[in-house]
Amino acid sequence: MVQTVDFLKEVQPDKSYRLLNIGATGIVSAVHDGVEDLMPAAWICPLDLLPFKVTAVIDKSHFTRPLIEKSGFFGISLPTVSVAKEMMYLGTISKNDEKDKVEKSGAEIFRFPGYDIPFMRGCAAYMIFKLVPEEHNQKTYDLFIGECLGAWADERVFRDGHWIFEQADPSLSTVHYVAGSHFYTMGRPHDVLL
Amino acid sequence: MVQTVDFLKEVQPDKSYRLLNIGATGIVSAVHDGVEDLMPAAWICPLDLLPFKVTAVIDKSHFTRPLIEKSGFFGISLPTVSVAKEMMYLGTISKNDEKDKVEKSGAEIFRFPGYDIPFMRGCAAYMIFKLVPEEHNQKTYDLFIGECLGAWADERVFRDGHWIFEQADPSLSTVHYVAGSHFYTMGRPHDVLL
Repeated sequence: MVQTVDFLKEVQPDKSYRLLNIGATGIVSAVHDGVEDLMPAAWICPLDLLPFKVTAVIDKSHFTRPLIEKSGFFGISLPTVSVAKEMMYLGTISKNDEKDKVEKSGAEIFRFPGYDIPFMRGCAAYMIFKLVPEEHNQKTYDLFIGECLGAWADERVFRDGHWIFEQADPSLSTVHYVAGSHFYTMGRPHDVLL
Repeated sequence: MVQTVDFLKEVQPDKSYRLLNIGATGIVSAVHDGVEDLMPAAWICPLDLLPFKVTAVIDKSHFTRPLIEKSGFFGISLPTVSVAKEMMYLGTISKNDEKDKVEKSGAEIFRFPGYDIPFMRGCAAYMIFKLVPEEHNQKTYDLFIGECLGAWADERVFRDGHWIFEQADPSLSTVHYVAGSHFYTMGRPHDVLL
């Protein structure tokens, strides 16, 4: 597994939304009362620029959901190809069925100083959100809104507010979900000049 | 410009959400009283599987927004590399400033039989949504919810419920927004086996 923690740099608040612009599949994570869980989530999306807000669709069946509702905080990270297997395990097994799911996944968990949110090493970016409670959205649509408290990215793939996948090893690409166990990586840069 | 209309096939309702799973940049389009507009939108996301629902963030400044609010319908399409320039024009110029913006963009507009929603030729997929009115979300977050009425995709890149970019010409890739005029194309397929 690629240990990206050494390469993590804080992302400016006004550039953090760009981490999610590309539509990569994420991992939503949370902890409450010492119980933590991480789950893949493809349905995450920027909602506002500054303060950077996000929407995340989190079904009622997920163990992670009450951890968010009770703690009021959650994390989103963007796994790379190098940890796609660990991500898949976190998505295939529910903590409802297997209490030591996270330990068995192979994911190496770490935390950012000052924040009690579990993250998996090997991701391209990490974001911490404070839940913006919206009971109607949560109950009716399983839709959660968060306001960003901090964001970090691997400087090998995101620098000065821009993704630079073309300068990095392909194993550091984000993954983009199709269905089943099928994903795409990011491709080539394409600049549109009018 | 690639004329993809000949290759368009209906997508099964229970597979339509997969069109948006990969996180491609879209074009939101609408018409009211004969006035139409199209605008790129990176902040679009699946909300529910079946009926397939979507969220789209549409700022108050956009000419397209009142067309959606008044008509109650909107379209989302996923432009390919082949029409990225036309998409960029639609995003750079506002119809508030230039009334014949759509005509000048170079976009070739067409409609699906039975639906009065303007779409640009050359996209990888097309979806038509009925607005699910949620006044609080629209006013507070610029967040719109739609329920899908129909979806079509270019069979050269999406077949039997799956994206197949690896079998198609690179010009048919979707585009994934970073910032400014900078995008990424879809990369290689990556299957995760546990």
